[in-house]
Order: sequence, then C-alpha cells, then structure tokens
Amino acid sequence: MSLKRYLPILDWGARYDRDTATSDAVAAVIVTIMLIPQSLAYAMLAGLPPEVGLYASIAPLILYAVFGTSRALAVGPVAVVSLMTAAAVGQVAAQGTPEYWAAAIALALMSGLMLTAMGLLRLGFMANFLSHPVISGFITASGIIIAASQLKHILGVKAGGHNLAEVLASLAQTIGDANPITAVIGVSVAAFLFWARKRLKPLLIAKGLRPRLADVIAKAGPVMAVAASTLAVWGLGLHERGVAIVGAIPSGLPPLALPSLDPALWSSLAVSALLISVVGFVESVSVAQTLAAKRRQRIAPDQELIGLGAANIGAAFTGGFPVTGGFARSVVNFDAGAETPAAGAFTAVGILLAALLLTPLLYFLPVATLAATIIVAVLSLVDLGSLRRTWAYSRPDFAAQLATIALTLGFGVEAGILAGVGLSIFLHLYTSSRPHVAVLGLVPGSEHFRNIRRHDVVTAPHVLMMRIDESLYFANARFLEDHVADAVAADPALRHVVLMCSAVNEIDASALESLEAIDQRLKAAGLRLHLSEVKGPVMDRLKRTDFLDHLSGDVFLTQYDAFHALAPAIADAARRAERRDTARPPAQAAQ
Amino acid sequence: MSLKRYLPILDWGARYDRDTATSDAVAAVIVTIMLIPQSLAYAMLAGLPPEVGLYASIAPLILYAVFGTSRALAVGPVAVVSLMTAAAVGQVAAQGTPEYWAAAIALALMSGLMLTAMGLLRLGFMANFLSHPVISGFITASGIIIAASQLKHILGVKAGGHNLAEVLASLAQTIGDANPITAVIGVSVAAFLFWARKRLKPLLIAKGLRPRLADVIAKAGPVMAVAASTLAVWGLGLHERGVAIVGAIPSGLPPLALPSLDPALWSSLAVSALLISVVGFVESVSVAQTLAAKRRQRIAPDQELIGLGAANIGAAFTGGFPVTGGFARSVVNFDAGAETPAAGAFTAVGILLAALLLTPLLYFLPVATLAATIIVAVLSLVDLGSLRRTWAYSRPDFAAQLATIALTLGFGVEAGILAGVGLSIFLHLYTSSRPHVAVLGLVPGSEHFRNIRRHDVVTAPHVLMMRIDESLYFANARFLEDHVADAVAADPALRHVVLMCSAVNEIDASALESLEAIDQRLKAAGLRLHLSEVKGPVMDRLKRTDFLDHLSGDVFLTQYDAFHALAPAIADAARRAERRDTARPPAQAAQ
Repeated sequence: MSLKRYLPILDWGARYDRDTATSDAVAAVIVTIMLIPQSLAYAMLAGLPPEVGLYASIAPLILYAVFGTSRALAVGPVAVVSLMTAAAVGQVAAQGTPEYWAAAIALALMSGLMLTAMGLLRLGFMANFLSHPVISGFITASGIIIAASQLKHILGVKAGGHNLAEVLASLAQTIGDANPITAVIGVSVAAFLFWARKRLKPLLIAKGLRPRLADVIAKAGPVMAVAASTLAVWGLGLHERGVAIVGAIPSGLPPLALPSLDPALWSSLAVSALLISVVGFVESVSVAQTLAAKRRQRIAPDQELIGLGAANIGAAFTGGFPVTGGFARSVVNFDAGAETPAAGAFTAVGILLAALLLTPLLYFLPVATLAATIIVAVLSLVDLGSLRRTWAYSRPDFAAQLATIALTLGFGVEAGILAGVGLSIFLHLYTSSRPHVAVLGLVPGSEHFRNIRRHDVVTAPHVLMMRIDESLYFANARFLEDHVADAVAADPALRHVVLMCSAVNEIDASALESLEAIDQRLKAAGLRLHLSEVKGPVMDRLKRTDFLDHLSGDVFLTQYDAFHALAPAIADAARRAERRDTARPPAQAAQ
Repeated sequence: MSLKRYLPILDWGARYDRDTATSDAVAAVIVTIMLIPQSLAYAMLAGLPPEVGLYASIAPLILYAVFGTSRALAVGPVAVVSLMTAAAVGQVAAQGTPEYWAAAIALALMSGLMLTAMGLLRLGFMANFLSHPVISGFITASGIIIAASQLKHILGVKAGGHNLAEVLASLAQTIGDANPITAVIGVSVAAFLFWARKRLKPLLIAKGLRPRLADVIAKAGPVMAVAASTLAVWGLGLHERGVAIVGAIPSGLPPLALPSLDPALWSSLAVSALLISVVGFVESVSVAQTLAAKRRQRIAPDQELIGLGAANIGAAFTGGFPVTGGFARSVVNFDAGAETPAAGAFTAVGILLAALLLTPLLYFLPVATLAATIIVAVLSLVDLGSLRRTWAYSRPDFAAQLATIALTLGFGVEAGILAGVGLSIFLHLYTSSRPHVAVLGLVPGSEHFRNIRRHDVVTAPHVLMMRIDESLYFANARFLEDHVADAVAADPALRHVVLMCSAVNEIDASALESLEAIDQRLKAAGLRLHLSEVKGPVMDRLKRTDFLDHLSGDVFLTQYDAFHALAPAIADAARRAERRDTARPPAQAAQ
C-alpha cells in the first residue's frame, strides 16, 4: 500500500498490456517529434548548448514514469523554467563557460531535492501561495520577455538582457548589424508556424486526410520548419553568409556525472531553485489535474512533487537542466492517446535515438528557426485578457497581477514572482484586516437578523448587535477593538453589545486578547459584552480558557435568543408582527 | 474639522482651564521625578551618553502634546526601543564615537518620518501584523536580554554582546575582573528597588501617610537610590576604588542640529527604523487605548502615528534618539491625574530644568545604580506565563511566540521580530489553507443541516452536501479542488455536489477559477455543482462574472431549498419526521 503510494508504477504497471502499450507508443512518437526541436530551443533559451536539451528529455521522462501519478503529463524542458534557469545561472557564471553548464546542473539537482523533500514532507500546499492571477501574470510577462529575447536570433544580432527594457534597449543598439538572410529565415519560419498552428489542420482535413493524421502533421510543423530551413542553409551555403547555425552537436548518450556540491554555488542559487521548483510544480500540477479530471482519474499532488523531484534529480545526473510538465506537450500527449506514464518513457527512447543518430543532421539548423519556434510557442502563453477579467472581479487580485507583470518585465523573473507572492499575501491580510461588519436588526415576523442598512428591521436602543463577516485573528483584532469602541462612544444609550459569530471560523490568541480587552473596557464603561451563534470548534477552544468565566455578558445559542433575553418586549412584538419584505432600495443600502 | 483632526491640541486646548492645568502639573512633577533616572538609564542602554536621554525627553514630549490624541500617554525613551536602537546602530558604528550618536539621531529621524507617513497614509493597520503572542514574546525576550546586558555594570566588568548567548559568554569570561564595591552598590540598589516597588507603599500607608503621598514616595524609589548611591560614592571616594561613575554631563539646552542624510547610512538603517517604528507604535497604542477606555475616551490610531512621528522627528533635531509611549510611565501619569497631553509638555519643562541645573549633581552617580534601575524596570516586562496560556489556547500562536523568544534570545531583536511576524503570517495562511469542511445531512424534523460525523442526520446517496468553514482564496483554492475531486472519485453514485457557503466571506480570483475548474471537471464527469446560502457581497461579485451563466447547477437561497430540489422525496420525509436529539457521542464524532 505504502510502496504503491510512492511508486505509482506498481499500480498501473501491474495492469499494463499490449493495447495500452500501443496507445502509449503512438502518443510517444508524436510527442517525440514535437519535443526534438523544443528541447533544442529551450536549451538555447536557457543559455545552454543544444544537446543539453536532449539530455534533459531522457532520464527525467523515465524517472517521472516511475514516480509520477499523472497518466498524461509530458515532462521535459519548458519555456518559463528555461527562462528562470537562464536568469538564475546568469548571475553566477557567464554563458558558454563550463561553469555556466555546471551551475544549471546544480540548479536542477537543488530543485529536484527541494521538490522531493516537499513531497515527502507533504508541503505541496506551499504552491498555494502563488495565487492564480500572480501565476497567470508571471507567465504572460515571461512569455513577452522570452519572445523579445529571441528577436536577436531572428535578426542575427548580438543582444542581451534579462528584463524587457534591457532586451529592447540592447536590440535597438544592435539592430544596425542585422543579417538580412537570417531575418528572412526567422520571419518565414515564424509566419509558417503561426499559419500551421491555425490553418494547417483544417486545410489537410479539407484535402481529404483523416482528422487524426491531419492533427499529427499539423503538430509536426516545427519539425518541417527545422528540416526545410536546415536544407536551405546547407544547400545554399547560407552559413558562409552570416546565418548563425547550431553547428556540431556531440552525438551519444547523456554524460553521467556528479553535479557540483559547492556550498557557495548552492547558497547563491537557493532562492532561484525554490522559485523554479514552485513555479514548475504549480504549472505542472494544474495541467495534470485538468487532464486527469477529463478521464475521472486522480493525481496525488504530494506524489507529483516526488515525481517531478525525481525527474530533476535525473536531469542533474545526466547533464541536463531543470524540467517540469509542459502544458502544450501534455495536451498533445493526452489527445494522442497516452494512457499511462509509460508514454513518457517511450518518448525518452525516441529522444535517446535522436541524440545518438540525428545530431549530425542538425549541423546546419539555423538558430533563427529555433528562435521562431520559441516565439510561436510562448506567445500562446501571453494572456492579457486575464488582466481585464481580474480587474472586473477583484481589485486586490488585479493589483497583485499587474505588479507581477510590471516587475517581471521591469526587473526580471525573480523580482516579479516574489513581488507577486508578497503582494497577494499582503493584500489578503489587508482585506481581512478590515472585515465587513453588519449592524443587525430583527426581520419582523421571523427569527432572522439582517443588516440594518439593507433591511427595514427592528432594533432596541440599548442593544447593539453586530455580525463580523470574518475569522478573528491578529490582522483584524485591533480593528475589532476600534470598531466596537467607536460604536459605543457614539451612542451613550447602549447597555449591551452582542457579537454574532456565525461567520467567525477561528479566533486566534490575538483576537482572544482583543475580546478580553473589549470586554474589560465595556465593563469599565458600564456595558456588557455578549456572543451569539459561536461555532462548535471555536466554542471548544474558548472553553479551554477563562475568557467565558470573566465575560461580562452571556453566550447565546442563537441571535434571537440574545435579542429576546436583552429586549424581551421588543423581540416578542417584532416576532409576532406580520412578515413582510424588508429589503431597502439599493440606493439606501449604501453598505 | 480637518485641522482639528491633525492638531488635537486645538480640541482640548480650547477647553483648557486652571483646574485642568493643576491636575496636569501635579502629574508632570511625579512623571519628571520618575523620568530623570529612566532617561539617563535608557540612554546608557542605547549605548549613548546620559545627557542624550534628557534631550530625548524634552522636544518629543512637547511635540506629542501638540499632535497626539492620548490624554495620558507619557512619551520618552523606553527600554525595548532603546535596546533595538543599540542593536541597529551598533551595526553601523562603534559605541562612544560621534558616528554612533549621529546614527542614533538619523534612526530617530527615519522612524519619525516613517511613523508620520504611515499616519498620513492611514497605514496604521501594518501594526496588526505583529500578533499579540509575537509582541509579548518579543518583549519578554528583550527584557531578558536587557537585564542580562546590564549585569556587567552591576559587576563592574567590560562585557558585550547583543544576544543572550553572547552576553552570558562575555560575562562568564570577564567575571573574574568584577569590582566588589560596584557589585555591592548594584545589588543593594536592585534589592532596594524591588523592595520599594512591592513593600514601600503599604509600609508608608501603615505608618499613617495618605495613600496618594505614599504612592508618590514609592514611585520616587529610583530617585532615592540615585541620590543615596551618588552621595555614597562622593562621600567615600569610591570612584577612586574602581566604581564606574557617570562623570561630567554637559549641562544646557539640547543641541539643535540637522541629522545626517547620508544615503548609505539611511539604507543600512531602514529595516531597523521600520521595526522600531512598528514595535514602538504597537506598544504605545495599546497603552493609550487601555487608558483612554478607562475614562470612556477615544484615541485615533492614525493620528497617534503622526503624534509619535512628530515626537521622533523632534528627538532627531534636538540630539535625541528614538522614543515612544512608555507603559509604566503612562500608567503613573494617568494615576497621578493627568487630564490632557499638556501634562507631557509640563514634564518636558521639568526635564529641561534638570538638564540645565541638575547635571553637575549627577557627576558621582554610579553606573551600577542606573543598571539596577533598568533591571528592575525590565524584569516586570518578562511574562513567561504568557507562553503557557498561549500553548493552552492555540498551537500555531504558541509556535510563533516560542520562535520569537528563541530567535530574539539567540540571534538578536531584529531576527526575532522578523521571524515572529513571518511565522504568524505563514501559520495563518497554512491554517486557512486547510479549512474545516463538513459533510452535511438534514436534521430530521427541521430545515437545519449538520455535520454527518457529529449528528445522526438524513442524506441522499446521489447528493453530496459540503459546508466550507473558511473564505475561499488563493491559499485554499487548490485544497478545495482536491477535496471535491477526492469525494467525488470515492463515490460513483453521486450526481450532485452542493457547496454551502454560509461561512464563505470572500471568494477571490484564484478561488473563482478553482470553482470554475471544479464545475467543468464535475460536468465532464456527469455531475452538477450547486451553491447555497451565498452571502450578499459574495453574490454581488459573482454576478459581475460569467461564472453563474456557465455553472452546471443552481444557486439556492437556503441549504434546505437545495436538498429539497435535488432529493424531494427524502427531504420531504425527513422534514416531516419527528424532531429528536441527533448529536452523536463524542467518541464517534471524530471530526
């Protein structure tokens, strides 16, 4: 039971048969065709030699197949994590040096260990601190930065920068050196890929192909672009006219090597590794969850952490760089019929064959083609409409999303995501630090209490009834003190304050002290504090303290009990009155 | 109106009369007597020359009288803030140098500007992020560190350290050099002060003094100790036998000078200034609020920030160091009859006279006497019983409190308070990331729904009813997805899921996306998602989106409406059944 939990392969592997294998193998062929150019391109995006992309697409896939729980997740290099890798490693080593590659490997190992540890310690909830608007804003901004950073390859110039301003400034400085042939290749490939993505499949179906085959061919667009542009460079000798090419890619098995354990390197990469781990996990788990639900399957988030952790540790020991589950590839894998994680292992075999046999064919592959592949892939991640939707629904979420986008574009990926997380948490605390508090009255002819601003209800001059629509904890404890003090100071006729606690899910130690302070201050001023409708778990904890012994008033089971006890004549009369619609026109119900 | 808000003196000043002035003046005399030794001692604790303590007790008090809203708050140097000043300034300059003093002045200016800005921007809620257990733990730990750090003066040795381990190690190393006469003075003064604090007032009353006078004399204990030990040193020439004395204190007005505006200094002190501001404000505002409530008065927290900000800016321009409202002094001020902030201004006049006239008399004052004054004052801040009470009530709060104490003692004040704040926020998010979710059934003979684990209630096999006892936001959005998916995967008979939202005070953008994802996944699996008892403000916002248009199920006003619509026969029968006690024995009601 426990072994199956940590080795999901024991579960699905026991029922594995020839039919499943066929489905998985078909999916694997399609994903392999898609992954070859992607793995080269994302290695380039990460600032690494192209073969590193292939290495990162072999061992990680096999390890995920053993430890992962998603039937359809396609693990490997992805755009956003590659960008984050480049940003992190670029701070400790120069691109093109052996130290740079070593740092990327160390980053994969750290990320793998962190993910595994989070999985074993069941810390998957840490991913929750990335709110949806923040992650969506971060991915949009990363997509823009990535696309901008690839323009230099499309133009054939040497430009740099890790944030949008740097990239654009560097491009503007160097655009005079642009290589026209490179630009023609880059722009044509990009145009072809955009066209293939939208139009190729319908066209092929219209030409009489079966939809399944048309889909596979359309997905192979990047491979066609790679083949055509490589042939063009080779045939026309364009590399002698300034077109940058991939050049010699060493063929062979991935190198088995121990990653660097240098403490200085590890400490300077630690924050980056944590961010890469969390971002990679969040992206991966949401794809996995969506695909699993379509077939009424379940994934285990904590085991997913272990699966992704194993994949990254595998990447580190075979010369790779950080990987995670990719969105587009996983959807393709799912649509192509992958039934078990074995599809990933078959894909790894395909990439292994490519690493052994195909690399000489990629010598003349223009870098501009890979850049165009990246641009077309990442622009689909850019979702500026999300900003509009978030604005319409929630201002605090919008603020966090906008800050994430602005800071990611302006100061780079790590600043952006940290600011987004910090701002989400801050705004959540801020919002719940000023909870909605309704002053209540009795709806005539009932035992229901409603906001006096929204309804025409019955109140008693000496009883103040308030409902707090929030758990009471440190961030709003002082607010409650202020609120009660203001209300009491404003009305000298008051003798009783009743706090209706139906929406109070928790009272922490700070709020308990605040309640004690409120009670003592009310008592000193000749008033009594009562509670009503306290939830079971909250009451259980209050009973463990001496708060209820000292409380100047009582705890009532229902708000009506409280009102009836403190103002019996008014309560009785109101309850016996005829029931009617008490809602006030919206203009009056200001709050 | 607005001017009165920012200048509370216009309000109470307009009604100021001779009676009030008399009350204020009497209180001021008593506070002045208490403040003279305290201001010298806290300056020493902050690592500054003793006259700086007097300077910090003049202009700040006058400015607070103009801008503050508390009638009884006594502003000036306090122990915890002085310790924090020493820790902060000690990182940028060596004690005894002009740079050290200049840095303390800059710290006061920064803190004053931050407090004023927070007041003008109404950011007083930031103080809420310091939970009560954290602030209480921090003050306890600070009290222990301060007391330990003063032992060197009691023993007459040269020791150092900013955390408990350093201080104790340094004491252990140097204890061999202890000066016996100094130790006798220090221990006698400390013993006298402890005795005076507990026993002197009852003794004087027993001797026939009026209680009011007895109280004043008892409060003057430190002044008596100062006078007696100074006379002893002078008379017996003890300073020639190794007893450290205060020495020459320049007499005269506080120096008017522009604080340093060095950007490097400011940036290295920024975090410290923020922490000092927030800790000082929290301490001050809670004293002010408690004292105001006793007379049914109100303070305005945002204006308090401006008052304390002005006080610190005043300290900076007159050679002082960071100040705030002191607990013990404010209580004395209140008890002595202070009626308006003018009492503080009168106290400032008293201290000014002391600075002009009394300093030559303090030449022979032994440092050990001041150290004993500090020790007796801070040990009353140590409240280890709070740990026990917090443990009994709330484990997360206890964890934050313990971490604050341990890290403050082990790594110093800034590490301690930052860890406490961070841990409180983290634990709050963690707790609300796994909310209590109850599966519900109908109580027979009623329209009430209760947890099926706690009550013997009626359910329908194809309807799952869940109540989430928490607002839905980013930290628990994924939890909800997992929870619903698990429940649905476990029971193939289900056709409907109803989320009862009576405790949901907010649904943020992340949770909205999660609800959409849950709805789509349920729909794909042939189930429908319904909501019930959605609160008004939450519903208002949901209506601004297209979520309700796409929702596979309905939104019901009450949970009973939902149950009746989805399982009419069962609901009708259960409602018509006889009402009975459904509570299960606690052993069964595991959750």
